[in-house]
Amino acid sequence: VVHAVIAGLAPYASRIDLTHQIPPHDIWAGALALWRAAPWLAPGVVLAVVDPGVGSERRAVAIRIADADVVLIGPDNGLLLPAAHRLGPITQAVALAADPAAPTESPVLTTAGATFAGRDIFAPAAGRIAAGAPIESLGPLIDPRSLIGRPVPTAQVDPAGTITAEVLWIDRYGNAQLSAGPDDIGRGPVRMRAGDTETDVRIVSSYAAIGAEDLALVVDSSGLLSICCDQRSAALHLGLNTGDPIRLFRLEQGHR
Amino acid sequence: VVHAVIAGLAPYASRIDLTHQIPPHDIWAGALALWRAAPWLAPGVVLAVVDPGVGSERRAVAIRIADADVVLIGPDNGLLLPAAHRLGPITQAVALAADPAAPTESPVLTTAGATFAGRDIFAPAAGRIAAGAPIESLGPLIDPRSLIGRPVPTAQVDPAGTITAEVLWIDRYGNAQLSAGPDDIGRGPVRMRAGDTETDVRIVSSYAAIGAEDLALVVDSSGLLSICCDQRSAALHLGLNTGDPIRLFRLEQGHR
Amino acid sequence: VVHAVIAGLAPYASRIDLTHQIPPHDIWAGALALWRAAPWLAPGVVLAVVDPGVGSERRAVAIRIADADVVLIGPDNGLLLPAAHRLGPITQAVALAADPAAPTESPVLTTAGATFAGRDIFAPAAGRIAAGAPIESLGPLIDPRSLIGRPVPTAQVDPAGTITAEVLWIDRYGNAQLSAGPDDIGRGPVRMRAGDTETDVRIVSSYAAIGAEDLALVVDSSGLLSICCDQRSAALHLGLNTGDPIRLFRLEQGHR
Repeated sequence: VVHAVIAGLAPYASRIDLTHQIPPHDIWAGALALWRAAPWLAPGVVLAVVDPGVGSERRAVAIRIADADVVLIGPDNGLLLPAAHRLGPITQAVALAADPAAPTESPVLTTAGATFAGRDIFAPAAGRIAAGAPIESLGPLIDPRSLIGRPVPTAQVDPAGTITAEVLWIDRYGNAQLSAGPDDIGRGPVRMRAGDTETDVRIVSSYAAIGAEDLALVVDSSGLLSICCDQRSAALHLGLNTGDPIRLFRLEQGHR
Repeated sequence: VVHAVIAGLAPYASRIDLTHQIPPHDIWAGALALWRAAPWLAPGVVLAVVDPGVGSERRAVAIRIADADVVLIGPDNGLLLPAAHRLGPITQAVALAADPAAPTESPVLTTAGATFAGRDIFAPAAGRIAAGAPIESLGPLIDPRSLIGRPVPTAQVDPAGTITAEVLWIDRYGNAQLSAGPDDIGRGPVRMRAGDTETDVRIVSSYAAIGAEDLALVVDSSGLLSICCDQRSAALHLGLNTGDPIRLFRLEQGHR
Repeated sequence: VVHAVIAGLAPYASRIDLTHQIPPHDIWAGALALWRAAPWLAPGVVLAVVDPGVGSERRAVAIRIADADVVLIGPDNGLLLPAAHRLGPITQAVALAADPAAPTESPVLTTAGATFAGRDIFAPAAGRIAAGAPIESLGPLIDPRSLIGRPVPTAQVDPAGTITAEVLWIDRYGNAQLSAGPDDIGRGPVRMRAGDTETDVRIVSSYAAIGAEDLALVVDSSGLLSICCDQRSAALHLGLNTGDPIRLFRLEQGHR
């Protein structure tokens, strides 16, 4: 239905579904999914909805990043900001109000509640931007610094050289994406503590290079380290969940 | 594959997937999903398939509602009629036959059975209508009163003022949509009997207003009352399934 | 993201999702899904990814079938060949390399690993072909006979007239598609041995003709015999999995 509302306002815009697999109410999982995809979405209009606060006083917003030629539209609850910051400095932000000319005001249905902002607020805004409207036409400007969100965590290195990261995402294959990249640990072998397991791991360039028995660290499609097994779930194997802390110790060349 | 057949016949038509989540063989769930979406689908061609009787003598039909500029295409088994009636009076209906010029008659595959009407009958019809063909070109006119379907239930009020509704739909968040709207009960508090549970409930305007412990009635995106918890499943909490009866008793202002 | 990369290169091409339901790493299930859909995909560019060997030395390839006006793009691991052979003789095949001009080389993200060929290799190739580039522009020609793949199995008939087939696919309704068509057994009743069950079965033309108690063989939408129950799962009923052998014995008219 969100697609239909957008298509009615911007019939020549191409629409792409990024994902419908975010767990209900998990704003942070949605924020990270959008953050991972962001570099490939420019230029464009991005509508995102993970919105447990719909109908409450949480704001609905549109955020423009001129450098990337992107407008992000959704609830101001932390969902949009990691992707916005990845795309560049925020040029403008506005607060959206329900659109009085939106298809909600159908003669067929006039008593709809306030629970489907995707259809009633975000889709009309996205359709109007896609059809060429300026962001200022959607509502009053707000201070970008007032937008809600926290940064995507990065790896921390303590004085002893121990690297602490966390599991950002378990993908559908069971690979566990970490908040650490190859530059954080160098290219040599490391010792990894994950849950109750402590083991030496290598960085390899493909799943096939892991071997049937082992797990390894693979530089994944986001440029981050992922704990992976070959054709089985590393997350199941190690009992990992998103948010779990992972500790890495460099075994060669000293600590950084 | 249904998309590919339509795109071959109407390459410039925009195609939107409404849902692929209807449980197998559940015609009524499909009918209600289409009924909920219907107001946002006009103008357009709507193809729907929940079709356990495919290949039997059940009819394949196209239904035109001129007021809404919509043609509905699918099996005549109850799937289409609630949406059709929501969109306006039926202008015309025709019975579809297998299209002798359809892509089924491929040199690659000539022995296909009669089990995939979505591809072999409905998609060719939808593509032709989307490309501008009149509905009469698809087959013989039939009497709209002969179309199969039952109306979406509404709330019943007995002489003592008790309102009886049923659960129409459990959404992916576990909200239980009822066949009753806010006008059926007024805005005051009500006592609700659902399964083995009897409890007082308020009508609130958003999920966030429910509070962490309670359940409440929320006017949902269809304008109907939904039994909801805040960020948990009300259906699991109360053990509700679609079709379950729900009784509501007004606590203030007397019965209507 | 794969859609976004293609849309960036071929903004006027229509894109269709065939399926996202292939089990992880199951190349053969993906190959059969593509083989079933192939006749309806011409003319077009087909991108397929089930790719456990991504980043290893397995080749990335594009395969052109001029008779069908189709280019298939994906890993050279057996995924593409059944569909290719169904569409016609292979005209040309090339090995793909990472595209130095592809959106991967974003200023935002320059350290991505080699694990997402769908985004980094296949989508740029598909977008370029859809925009009109010749297949030879994507990489060096390779010998089509060097492409990896095995044929879709067909039914075997032994000297005693016993037909041995296998379960190619269990669909979402629990119908079990066999590697045998109606011509393999004639139209009369047959005795079927499937797992521990041995039973007489008829060939019927629709699910509704099966009756509530029985199972039957239905000529399915691919023109193959499927073991089906009416509105229940035949695969659950008989304990069938893909790859299971099924034996059929003709009961009338002697053996072929």
